[in-house]
Amino acid sequence: MNITEFVERSIGRWRSQRSAHHLAFGHFEAIQSVIDIVAMTLDDPAVVDLCKSYNIDTKAAVSPFRMSWDGQSDWDENEVLKGSCILVPVPDRDRPNRGKLLRDQGYAETMAAAGDYYLTEDDTFVLVTAYDRAAAEEKIWFVNPNVRCRVSLIKTSAGTGIVTASFSSEIRQEIKN
Amino acid sequence: MNITEFVERSIGRWRSQRSAHHLAFGHFEAIQSVIDIVAMTLDDPAVVDLCKSYNIDTKAAVSPFRMSWDGQSDWDENEVLKGSCILVPVPDRDRPNRGKLLRDQGYAETMAAAGDYYLTEDDTFVLVTAYDRAAAEEKIWFVNPNVRCRVSLIKTSAGTGIVTASFSSEIRQEIKN
Repeated sequence: MNITEFVERSIGRWRSQRSAHHLAFGHFEAIQSVIDIVAMTLDDPAVVDLCKSYNIDTKAAVSPFRMSWDGQSDWDENEVLKGSCILVPVPDRDRPNRGKLLRDQGYAETMAAAGDYYLTEDDTFVLVTAYDRAAAEEKIWFVNPNVRCRVSLIKTSAGTGIVTASFSSEIRQEIKN
Repeated sequence: MNITEFVERSIGRWRSQRSAHHLAFGHFEAIQSVIDIVAMTLDDPAVVDLCKSYNIDTKAAVSPFRMSWDGQSDWDENEVLKGSCILVPVPDRDRPNRGKLLRDQGYAETMAAAGDYYLTEDDTFVLVTAYDRAAAEEKIWFVNPNVRCRVSLIKTSAGTGIVTASFSSEIRQEIKN
């Protein structure tokens, strides 16, 4: 599977159950949300701007998409877990299974970030993103066309400490018109 | 990483946080447990018996171990989540990264089961076990020497339906004498 196929399979509306394990405290957090993943075009001004901000030629980019989420945590029901971001894969020229993923806004920190991704031989998408004071490692794979799993780890940047480990099971929803 | 290294890295006591997502109902279950993984020897009578029951020569087996768990779920605090099983890897002769994993008692169903395992290029252990009416798929990987992640999926055997997806983060505990 290449990144284009991976993005194609991800397009749609997903109902997500996410469990976050806050490891230092042994706490569990449960988050339910709806995630929309929508294909964009390479000539969309928002995609062009994002590429420009990273000095990337849009000709090197493939399969840009927008991801939106709207959820609720059992920790604080008043907290709004809502947002969206634009993601643009930029495959390596020489290694088609690897590349950069540009993002106009991260969800670990609300700032722009570029991560490094690769696809494994068993079709797992792995994304590593370094932030100022933390690093995020994410694995996403399809169990079948309508079920995705996602494991996200937030690590301290200076070492191997894991702060949060979270797991999402995502089920494709039909969108009724 | 081969299966012997994988087992070696797993030996010890682990504090586990597990979240189970019961997908049909959108339910979350939180389980906290202590897991002990202890090396056994190939001449241990329990290992010899297990190999015999599968018609496997113990010379073909490597790194047998016993796994015990003792936990509590937030669904039913009176339920005892306690047990142990013996596991015996039997690598394929021709493909060292694949093999069978014999188990004297499964945890999806309390019966003996032999699963098929493989190790991916990025050191994830994948185990697929077929039961009478269900199939279990498990992925385990080390984030660092003291943190393991484990994703388990229980599927209906006749199709692609996923019944439960669960995620464990496991942190190595020091054992004080």
